[in-house]
Amino acid sequence: MKKEYLLTPGPTPLPPQVSLAMAKPIIHHRTPQFQEILKEASRGLKWAFQTANDVFIISSSGTGAMEAAVINLLSCGDTALVVQGGKFGERWTEIAKAYGICPEIINVEWGKAVSPAEISKRLKSNPQIKAVFTTLCETSTGVDNDIQAIAAVVKESSAVLVVDAISGLGAVDLKTDAWGVDVVVAGSQKGFMLPPGLGFICLSSRAWKLVEASKSGRYYLDLRKAKKALDKNDTPFTSSITLIIALNEALKIMQQDGLENIFQRHRIMADATRAAMQALGLELFAPLAASDGVTAAKVPVGIDGEKLVKTMRDTYGVTIAGGQGELKGKVFRIAHMGFITESDIIMGLSCLEKVLTKMGYKFTLGAGIRAAEEVFLK
Amino acid sequence: MKKEYLLTPGPTPLPPQVSLAMAKPIIHHRTPQFQEILKEASRGLKWAFQTANDVFIISSSGTGAMEAAVINLLSCGDTALVVQGGKFGERWTEIAKAYGICPEIINVEWGKAVSPAEISKRLKSNPQIKAVFTTLCETSTGVDNDIQAIAAVVKESSAVLVVDAISGLGAVDLKTDAWGVDVVVAGSQKGFMLPPGLGFICLSSRAWKLVEASKSGRYYLDLRKAKKALDKNDTPFTSSITLIIALNEALKIMQQDGLENIFQRHRIMADATRAAMQALGLELFAPLAASDGVTAAKVPVGIDGEKLVKTMRDTYGVTIAGGQGELKGKVFRIAHMGFITESDIIMGLSCLEKVLTKMGYKFTLGAGIRAAEEVFLK
Repeated sequence: MKKEYLLTPGPTPLPPQVSLAMAKPIIHHRTPQFQEILKEASRGLKWAFQTANDVFIISSSGTGAMEAAVINLLSCGDTALVVQGGKFGERWTEIAKAYGICPEIINVEWGKAVSPAEISKRLKSNPQIKAVFTTLCETSTGVDNDIQAIAAVVKESSAVLVVDAISGLGAVDLKTDAWGVDVVVAGSQKGFMLPPGLGFICLSSRAWKLVEASKSGRYYLDLRKAKKALDKNDTPFTSSITLIIALNEALKIMQQDGLENIFQRHRIMADATRAAMQALGLELFAPLAASDGVTAAKVPVGIDGEKLVKTMRDTYGVTIAGGQGELKGKVFRIAHMGFITESDIIMGLSCLEKVLTKMGYKFTLGAGIRAAEEVFLK
Repeated sequence: MKKEYLLTPGPTPLPPQVSLAMAKPIIHHRTPQFQEILKEASRGLKWAFQTANDVFIISSSGTGAMEAAVINLLSCGDTALVVQGGKFGERWTEIAKAYGICPEIINVEWGKAVSPAEISKRLKSNPQIKAVFTTLCETSTGVDNDIQAIAAVVKESSAVLVVDAISGLGAVDLKTDAWGVDVVVAGSQKGFMLPPGLGFICLSSRAWKLVEASKSGRYYLDLRKAKKALDKNDTPFTSSITLIIALNEALKIMQQDGLENIFQRHRIMADATRAAMQALGLELFAPLAASDGVTAAKVPVGIDGEKLVKTMRDTYGVTIAGGQGELKGKVFRIAHMGFITESDIIMGLSCLEKVLTKMGYKFTLGAGIRAAEEVFLK
């Protein structure tokens, strides 16, 4: 007998009613029945994105939606400011370069948040910058950037602000319209408690002006087509029917919960996880900008980080994430995002304690759990 | 009580074991468990595509995979020969134009198959043509093109042959390697008996030379990235985990059945459907090149084609397809593709007979069913 537990920053576990919705007989996408579901899901997405603008659903991973943002806003030769403080910041740069867009890069030390003042400085010194690309939760380092403060400085320029919120949306607050964020990109397999396979994107009217001016070649990811279709309550190409039906179920659960409750639950689970790391004598990788969606901790000296993750998974069925890119083997990451509760966190922390003990790391057994419980009882 | 029946050319119904596979708890994509599934699915896809080359899985609708073919093979300014005999042939042209590729168009009368001799003539008169884009089953008109004959003439030129087999693969024969087809594109929601959301593409070594030479901007659909990932038994971006698990289940069913049995089943169901149309006095839209995946019939004079489709769906729960584009209201289409049996065809034909009768069309009640039964009993 083996039971599996998922504490990874995408995919995140699925609520059973979402899983079961996908097992229902498939329906055709050009029917009133599916149109009703698409309409409801679109309404729910606006709520989750905290925007009055349309949120488009793309059949793609989150990266497809990121690319849609880049090529619909900019053309070859344009300049973009890219915040690069981890693997997903780097992705903005890679996409821009693939299309001949010139990225001006702000290299942020991994584990730190970008300074809004630095963004402001760069925008002032280079008026060519048409768009600023940044990340809500840099999953690779466990950092949440201060999007509200970034939006405030970008608003002083003529550039649009694009936020990769693939990791983070539906877990931490992002007031798209109220803060003046122009473009928000998200994906299905994190805060939305769905399998991967859907990308989401919303755009302000300021961003739409760029979409209409962009000369980039585009077809599948052409947002003008997406808009034309959505105006008729449709998608430009065959919808990922099953995933959209599941999305609608997940959005219902989220709406019953309410955004404030969702954000608070994530904050408390993050606080508890961070407190546990400290109680275990483990160093947070991003102590000053720690994400409420995922906690990254440094692997202690003398411990094999990859083996730690592998043992938790293969011996105990608890899947957490290791480090990516330059952090491979150096950090481990526990996600507290989506369909995750206090009890799941306790379970994951206990497994960590057991495996660390077996690997020879010294600490007071139970100290992590106790610290987490203290946070939960507050 | 209402029971739904789906006889549409995508999505097609799902076998229950495929549906239930999607309801299982989600697993992480960077685990040995998922890698085993991906490896098995990749092997199964090669079998279904009848190729020794890799088949790449893209998280997108079929159109995304079509776009991958265009932009990975060609650059702005290149010339492509496009066979355009329906809505999906037109899609090749639209994608090419979106990227500044010059389409030389063979306009085929809707309802007819392209003449391989015409393709040969065009290739000889324009040696600039780098690629020929055609369609296996033109779902919009119910036509199957003769890919084997097309491949034979394209092989005499330096151009590569690209076949949109989104509709048709897994239903009608396409011997990719044996016939010398360079690129085959498919999708999940037709012969593969899955929900929409996955695109597939395989390429010959000749086609790979073009991929390496293409100057088109590309990132999400960059097949060089897909190849690099697949060589490590991975996908370049987060996999559509649930759909790939379902794919693996569907491929197991298909492999137990065997390709010859699958093609024969589709051929017999198509023959029966065509015989029924004739027995009902209905004219086939594509009598000379009728597809074994979907039958298109002309709506008889005096009958409202859209109302016919709507009544079958809303009164009897039987969803067939109407006409697309210029054929809207003029044809109806019954798919016999994927998880469909003789009994489903009888059920659909009976519903058609009832609704045609109610709408005032004159014929011998039961004649269609009888003609179909005669084919099935042969």
